[in-house]
Amino acid sequence: MRLRGRKGIREDIERQKELVVLNARDHKGKWSELFGNDKPIHAELGMGKGRFISEMSRKYPDINFIGVDMYDELIRKASEKAKMAHGIDSEDTEKESNEVISIPNLRLMLFNIEQIEEAFAEDELERIYLNFSDPWPKKKHARRRLTHPGFVEKYQQILNSSGEIHLKTDSQSLFEFSLNSFADMGLRMRNISLNLHADGLNPDHVMTEYETKFAGQGMNIHRCEVVVGEQALAAHLDNLRKADS
Amino acid sequence: MRLRGRKGIREDIERQKELVVLNARDHKGKWSELFGNDKPIHAELGMGKGRFISEMSRKYPDINFIGVDMYDELIRKASEKAKMAHGIDSEDTEKESNEVISIPNLRLMLFNIEQIEEAFAEDELERIYLNFSDPWPKKKHARRRLTHPGFVEKYQQILNSSGEIHLKTDSQSLFEFSLNSFADMGLRMRNISLNLHADGLNPDHVMTEYETKFAGQGMNIHRCEVVVGEQALAAHLDNLRKADS
Repeated sequence: MRLRGRKGIREDIERQKELVVLNARDHKGKWSELFGNDKPIHAELGMGKGRFISEMSRKYPDINFIGVDMYDELIRKASEKAKMAHGIDSEDTEKESNEVISIPNLRLMLFNIEQIEEAFAEDELERIYLNFSDPWPKKKHARRRLTHPGFVEKYQQILNSSGEIHLKTDSQSLFEFSLNSFADMGLRMRNISLNLHADGLNPDHVMTEYETKFAGQGMNIHRCEVVVGEQALAAHLDNLRKADS
Repeated sequence: MRLRGRKGIREDIERQKELVVLNARDHKGKWSELFGNDKPIHAELGMGKGRFISEMSRKYPDINFIGVDMYDELIRKASEKAKMAHGIDSEDTEKESNEVISIPNLRLMLFNIEQIEEAFAEDELERIYLNFSDPWPKKKHARRRLTHPGFVEKYQQILNSSGEIHLKTDSQSLFEFSLNSFADMGLRMRNISLNLHADGLNPDHVMTEYETKFAGQGMNIHRCEVVVGEQALAAHLDNLRKADS
């Protein structure tokens, strides 16, 4: 791989207009227009190098995916991962820079999650994935954790009535914090796992870069789902009732 | 310590009429009469050798404690632990078997927890402690886990409006099962800890036998509280609101 400076990276991601979104605020409330359809939108907040969102977008063509991160370099890496996952040869496309790279159901969005409500309107998302978010272990940084109530309140705003949050982390301290955060907010959790890879993985399970690494080292992966939207909650309660009878 | 046969053990606990309760069903709805006061009653279901309940009863004279287990031998061991904790010399009391051993706020109850609703009436308990309960790791034994909804429904019945369940376990699998059980039942959890001894112990924390052993081996102790009673829930929500503002 060619080494590129900061400027080169920015030029690279600017060129990928069909895949990379640099002006997220302009699309607030209009993401369906951007995708050109009304399919549900799932966003991964903090997608890192993008393996998860790339794989998900390949696996679920009927969902629109948005991978969010705040660093140019991660957006560029994720764009390469995405092209690879979708069978687009990255080398070729670099040579022919005029060719438009498009993955219909995926966008990579350069954005600071702290202002997430400026990028999405009320009810615009159906699901938020939080994968291996920074645990910010120091107590004085608790507000920066992506499951701090300050963040979760924003997620509640932008998630629709089918809305869910899916959290996955190797960090025991972040997971503990998150469980308490959701519990204190009175949110409904389900499928809580303290050792995902021991509990037996769902065959459709999509791994992140971190997950492959940490699970391979025998570390516990923690996971849970939070049922946020009213319709999602009603469906969940209905399922529980059925399982009970 | 003298070795005793099964019969000797039974005779021993039968003799301790002021401390050991063998006919729990007869006291259903009348435990306050037995204690001779209206102080709240906290029960430990599965007290084992009784270190926790003994220590708690010494530490909190304004709470009535009941330690429950189903084996004669554990009741006997717990009775010795209790006498020790309360500064009663066990050797002396064995010699003078006519002497009445009384710890005003503690009873040890020989009973099978599966029928717990036959020993306590509705609203009779204020708190249930589940410490290091048998994890019953096999899926086919899930119904025997003390946090299975089948059990928790019974706890909901016998707990009063200030009712809480306090769970502590070294077992990751039992803790995971318990969190899901409480979540699926729509119960409100709080103070969830995945590594109690790393999070910093409350100075008033009372350890069990298992806890000393497992924590000493560097194993994680998991803990959570479940707010069951309406009044307890209202107070909890009020505290959260105050902390938030």
